[in-house]
Amino acid sequence: MNPFFRIAARDATTSARNGCLQTAHGEIQTPVFMPVGTQGTVKTLDPEELSQVGSQIILGNTYHLYLRPGTEVIERAGGLQKFSNWNRPMLTDSGGYQVYSLSGLRKVTDDGVVFQSHIDGSYHHFSPEFTTQIQLSLGSNIMMVLDECPPYPCTFDYALESLHRTTAWAGRCLTEFRDCEPRYGYEQTMFAIVQGSTFPDLRRQSAEALIALDFPGYAIGGLSIGEPKPVLFEMIGLCTEMLPEEKPRYLMGMGKPEDIVEGISLGVDMFDCVLPTRNARKGQVFTWDGALNVRNAAYKMDFNPIADDCGCYTCGNFSRAYLRHLFNAQEILGMRLASLHNLYFYHELVKKCRECIADGKFGEWRTEFSRRYSTQTTNNNTVLT
Amino acid sequence: MNPFFRIAARDATTSARNGCLQTAHGEIQTPVFMPVGTQGTVKTLDPEELSQVGSQIILGNTYHLYLRPGTEVIERAGGLQKFSNWNRPMLTDSGGYQVYSLSGLRKVTDDGVVFQSHIDGSYHHFSPEFTTQIQLSLGSNIMMVLDECPPYPCTFDYALESLHRTTAWAGRCLTEFRDCEPRYGYEQTMFAIVQGSTFPDLRRQSAEALIALDFPGYAIGGLSIGEPKPVLFEMIGLCTEMLPEEKPRYLMGMGKPEDIVEGISLGVDMFDCVLPTRNARKGQVFTWDGALNVRNAAYKMDFNPIADDCGCYTCGNFSRAYLRHLFNAQEILGMRLASLHNLYFYHELVKKCRECIADGKFGEWRTEFSRRYSTQTTNNNTVLT
Repeated sequence: MNPFFRIAARDATTSARNGCLQTAHGEIQTPVFMPVGTQGTVKTLDPEELSQVGSQIILGNTYHLYLRPGTEVIERAGGLQKFSNWNRPMLTDSGGYQVYSLSGLRKVTDDGVVFQSHIDGSYHHFSPEFTTQIQLSLGSNIMMVLDECPPYPCTFDYALESLHRTTAWAGRCLTEFRDCEPRYGYEQTMFAIVQGSTFPDLRRQSAEALIALDFPGYAIGGLSIGEPKPVLFEMIGLCTEMLPEEKPRYLMGMGKPEDIVEGISLGVDMFDCVLPTRNARKGQVFTWDGALNVRNAAYKMDFNPIADDCGCYTCGNFSRAYLRHLFNAQEILGMRLASLHNLYFYHELVKKCRECIADGKFGEWRTEFSRRYSTQTTNNNTVLT
Repeated sequence: MNPFFRIAARDATTSARNGCLQTAHGEIQTPVFMPVGTQGTVKTLDPEELSQVGSQIILGNTYHLYLRPGTEVIERAGGLQKFSNWNRPMLTDSGGYQVYSLSGLRKVTDDGVVFQSHIDGSYHHFSPEFTTQIQLSLGSNIMMVLDECPPYPCTFDYALESLHRTTAWAGRCLTEFRDCEPRYGYEQTMFAIVQGSTFPDLRRQSAEALIALDFPGYAIGGLSIGEPKPVLFEMIGLCTEMLPEEKPRYLMGMGKPEDIVEGISLGVDMFDCVLPTRNARKGQVFTWDGALNVRNAAYKMDFNPIADDCGCYTCGNFSRAYLRHLFNAQEILGMRLASLHNLYFYHELVKKCRECIADGKFGEWRTEFSRRYSTQTTNNNTVLT
């Protein structure tokens, strides 16, 4: 039995399951959606609002926080949670993904990655040991190993080479982590990341090697970066089948509502994505019938809430017409209210999944959800005024 | 006796007084500071936060709301308060000031002002009757007459000509207002605006002519636009001495804390200014010791709140170091938390004035406030990193 993770219920017809993660900052009911707080804040929202919409755990980005405000500031504050006044569980990535996606010049060697800051062009070196140290300073409840995320598509040979590096780095991160005392007195934990691009053999190799290292939890990385949907779900299913039943599984960066439901059915426990907050800032909001864009001219005189059946602060108090006005007038409150609504919707979505799993109705509900939820959302973005 | 405004206490040594304004959306204790909600939202904040920081009444700008979202949308929503979910008192200006300060080409005639929208260059015409109609549609509790705000400095002749126009317009606004039923069933009221630039004779002429029209309240306009401080306060004092004792007095657009305290001592009841929110969005925050800019490098490791003696949400939960980080990282939450703090401070400032007037200690407190409150705040803005 894993004292950190406990499975509470399993779905009969799919691989979906309910679980509970224990952390020093409280419990997390899974499946869970984790909002992304890139720079020590989930954009536009404050910690009270996050709690109100149902956030159980949020992410912090090591790359960003290391560059700004810097590890020293956060250490002196007593960790990222105290610094940002988020007193619930926090997960930090290793910074690897941002090095690949944001920084200018970068060079990957077996010892880690040298990169240039996207802010001021300064040079930095992330080794497995160093990103572990940064995350110890951030004080996150769940830390991630340094990995390399190969682009899609990539060659088998590159994916293989990258995979060996990621596996070696995972071992070094774990060693460094086990050699160190936690900075703030409470226990932290560390997850490995399965890579291998879209090659089933490599995904298997990666999972096997990391399982041998006996991490408390496993993430699936390198997906949702442009590969076709069937390939995406094939890779997820392949990984969740291999990964230990009794340990939490975290699918990194995948965030469309319909994909999350699919991911849950494949046995994923944890999700994160910037999508609900990033798209909110452009006016896209989610409902059980699909997404819509409140900037659309159709909502000029629409005094209904985003969704009649939504219990969030935004829907309880403001109309589509008002939201449309706020976006047209470039008022920050529009971005706030849309972000708040979207996170509420995402948390309700996974909560509904948890309830259906507990009640043995997940398979049935999933069909119903798919029937109602329209993925034809891009049309809503075309008629803007 | 004025059923709309009731004076509750008078200071013995100054012209300061406490009062209470009755509106269809509730009472307002004066002296009062009114946050500016230019486009149907006090920038970055939601209505709940406004209530929490102590806002009793907020402003809406007719010029902006007429252009976007337009009168038709707000009428269909049932007025600006319903549209924006601010269920407390609201004051709207006539739009005149923004026509002068924001729009491109504009032409003032005795019949009103023709101007080009700053958004799309379209032509519009504001007459006294039309701005009254717009404000009736907005449904504000306190409406303002259309006036012309002459620039500073301006010639006596121009100020005189402008003054005659403003007086004539005030009469036409009042007639239009009295001829119309309120749009939404509740009573609205209208204030006149004393102009006359910095010429004492013209201020007197303006006040006399407007007093003869018997408005329920009077504003002092055309000040705080570049004239020297002694001239500003001379003009305020001159106006408040002339204006009817039993009617509310509103000084438009003046907003430094030390000037508000001075204005209160001269018998002003109502203030509005974008300063606390606009400066907040640049990192400037107010304390009883003066203003500081949280972006300052000095606060990098400062884990104290903006002010130890402040009871706002920002000071109760976040440090200067965290706020500095948010501003450096260009995170919206920084602007929100600073705006919230500044409005809280402004409302505490006028509340303290009200308490001291009630207790007969205003003169004494004012000296104490001046001694503590440093106006040397610009130095705080120089060392930014």
